[in-house]
Amino acid sequence: MRCAILTIGTEILFGQIVNTNTVYLTRELNHMGFDVLYHHTVGDNAARLKELIHETYKDCNVIVCTGGLGPTEDDLTKETIAEAFGDKLEMHQESLVNLEAFAKRRGWKEITPNNYKQAMMPTKARVFQNDVGTAPAFALMGEMDGAGDLISVKDNSEVFDKEDLKIIVTMPGPPREMKWMWNTHIKPFLLGFSDKSLSYRVIRTFGIGESKLETVLLTLIDGQTDPTIATYAKEGESSLRIASQRATKEEADAAVEDMLEKVREYIGKYIYSIDDEDLHQVVGRTLIEKGISISSCESCTGGMFSSKLVEIPGISQVYDRGIVTYSNRAKIEELGVSEDIINEYGAESPEVAAEMVKGLARVTGSRLCISSTGVAGPGNSQGPKGEIPVGDMFIGVYFDGEVHVKEMHTGRDDRVVNRNSCMLTMFDEIRKVIDQKV
Amino acid sequence: MRCAILTIGTEILFGQIVNTNTVYLTRELNHMGFDVLYHHTVGDNAARLKELIHETYKDCNVIVCTGGLGPTEDDLTKETIAEAFGDKLEMHQESLVNLEAFAKRRGWKEITPNNYKQAMMPTKARVFQNDVGTAPAFALMGEMDGAGDLISVKDNSEVFDKEDLKIIVTMPGPPREMKWMWNTHIKPFLLGFSDKSLSYRVIRTFGIGESKLETVLLTLIDGQTDPTIATYAKEGESSLRIASQRATKEEADAAVEDMLEKVREYIGKYIYSIDDEDLHQVVGRTLIEKGISISSCESCTGGMFSSKLVEIPGISQVYDRGIVTYSNRAKIEELGVSEDIINEYGAESPEVAAEMVKGLARVTGSRLCISSTGVAGPGNSQGPKGEIPVGDMFIGVYFDGEVHVKEMHTGRDDRVVNRNSCMLTMFDEIRKVIDQKV
Repeated sequence: MRCAILTIGTEILFGQIVNTNTVYLTRELNHMGFDVLYHHTVGDNAARLKELIHETYKDCNVIVCTGGLGPTEDDLTKETIAEAFGDKLEMHQESLVNLEAFAKRRGWKEITPNNYKQAMMPTKARVFQNDVGTAPAFALMGEMDGAGDLISVKDNSEVFDKEDLKIIVTMPGPPREMKWMWNTHIKPFLLGFSDKSLSYRVIRTFGIGESKLETVLLTLIDGQTDPTIATYAKEGESSLRIASQRATKEEADAAVEDMLEKVREYIGKYIYSIDDEDLHQVVGRTLIEKGISISSCESCTGGMFSSKLVEIPGISQVYDRGIVTYSNRAKIEELGVSEDIINEYGAESPEVAAEMVKGLARVTGSRLCISSTGVAGPGNSQGPKGEIPVGDMFIGVYFDGEVHVKEMHTGRDDRVVNRNSCMLTMFDEIRKVIDQKV
Repeated sequence: MRCAILTIGTEILFGQIVNTNTVYLTRELNHMGFDVLYHHTVGDNAARLKELIHETYKDCNVIVCTGGLGPTEDDLTKETIAEAFGDKLEMHQESLVNLEAFAKRRGWKEITPNNYKQAMMPTKARVFQNDVGTAPAFALMGEMDGAGDLISVKDNSEVFDKEDLKIIVTMPGPPREMKWMWNTHIKPFLLGFSDKSLSYRVIRTFGIGESKLETVLLTLIDGQTDPTIATYAKEGESSLRIASQRATKEEADAAVEDMLEKVREYIGKYIYSIDDEDLHQVVGRTLIEKGISISSCESCTGGMFSSKLVEIPGISQVYDRGIVTYSNRAKIEELGVSEDIINEYGAESPEVAAEMVKGLARVTGSRLCISSTGVAGPGNSQGPKGEIPVGDMFIGVYFDGEVHVKEMHTGRDDRVVNRNSCMLTMFDEIRKVIDQKV
């Protein structure tokens, strides 16, 4: 299916809000094997919206709309879409009942005429009720005639050739409502137009170079069209999406799992999730599940690690404390790092990373301790043994009495990138040490 | 000027990268007083691109394009745009010289035929050299005739009525290159088509309710069309953009400053920047400038505050240390909070927030100390005196021997929102205490 994502909302064209719905839907549609040909955003303007719908159907089957369904603006979007499909609005009984029930649950004093309009629907629409807001979603289906006019139908069984089918779906704009509507109703509805069953997995990796990943992928996909593999890279982390569309769900699942095994053979040690989880989520969950007590001390990352770890609900079961020892005095007083070692090697050194983590283990008694120190930038740093290049960072890892230091040399003069990359590597080092030793 | 932002890039339609350029350009164009009517994204497909350009010019004067200028894809975008304007590509001498100089500086072994194509330009284009990459930007101007065909011109002085003028500008896709090109060349070029001079300021506020902000704005703008005021709200922070377009720069500046004074009368105490800076940047800079030593201890924010503070280069001059006392044991051992107080009031209480910050001041001797504790969620917490609602958070502030506690009751059951809002309030409390006492 060839499709377009159409966002309706003046506030996006004013720059007041960022269009995150399009990013989400783009990935979803690609995962489903749909081809995304366009992203469009228009304001609340009927003429432009109608023109754009007609233009888009010249080479698309499906238009996925978000926004423009709020109580103050809904006539415009809904009426225009209905009109584009040669349809008109009428009160939709099920939506009306739902609206009244929603108003009662929330204790509204009255239902305004504007709210009532939210229950008006195109007569031929397939309507999807909204359990998390007041605006239902709907779909219209039809065919385009020779003159470029759309002829709508009540049911897709009335339709012709699937190649000619034109579908529009509309969802509310607030991301929480949109995602609920998408996953509950719209995605299954759209998948219903496919003869095939879809299966996919998003695999997350850390630490693998982009060129290595490319090489592996070229080897694995070598001419085959199903399953497909796509990659999404950002700052040291890469995601792989393996997707398959087969006659049955079982076949599709099996094809994805087969490919996953092949991918593991090449890059298994870099994989930290086969279910699209974040690295800190995987690590946090592992620490809680295995009951491994942990403390952290940070210099260059400055609390980024602890802040990320504390995102995990329930982490208080294992996380004792984090110390941001930004000054040398704090390293000495809090962790008992010796002043001599700082003077001899400099605060930004593997030796100090090791001393920090040893000190932290003494103070806290935690089974796992982790430290960071290094030059985040901007610019190189001056150490006692000469210049320390920006991007040189050191991570101390203490586990059950043993200590090792991971050295990083990013070569990047970018404070944000360096700190983020050091923080992620801290999580990856924890993952690896638990993997090897527990 | 009525304009559209056109992004060219299959990788965006695959969901591989997020279209941040459009967000940036939307805000810039709105600041400049241009009306943004559309956002479009298309892949590297000549027919679709050409069709979209023609459609867009039906109600826009300006199309701002990014992407599609890389060495492997440039013929397509450039050729298609040239063709849409009835023009063709030829080797552009200045771009060729610049390309060769760039290759020499970077020590390239050879310039490939693909790279040479990057120096090909439409014959009537105004070309803008790229100091930070290899793809120059360019602009084409023209008029649309009755048949919907574009007639291009070499110079806008050859053109007719400004109302009819059609302009297309293209910039490289990588955000760093795009922003450089925009600020150095494209923005001044586009502002040249305005009879008026533009002035604007982005004012940042914290802690003001959205409804209060609305009321103030309605009072201030009451029917006037210049200066304009627009607001951008997110999670407790609101930005106001005051913009004026007048015959001269001096008049526009004066109109903006006048309005700024009026805004100050109403909401002066909420304003922390009149130059679009972030709260933590303003606070970090103030601490460094005034040489105020600072330490932090965090429970619910869990290192978010220190991580944000450490974003500021040079903060090591005043930031001693941060302690994430996530467990009660850490609060007792690191800060000397008494176990009795924790047992009596609970760890998530104003009393403990005050004890934390007093203890931190004893340990560090810092002139300013700040603490956080509270219920970030999910769900309410159980304290010794009963349930503590999710979103109840407490910030201890120590300054020159005095201590006070800021209480927050967000009423939100969202861990991310609560922690972020507590972290921002910590910065705001520091701003206020310095404002009042230094």
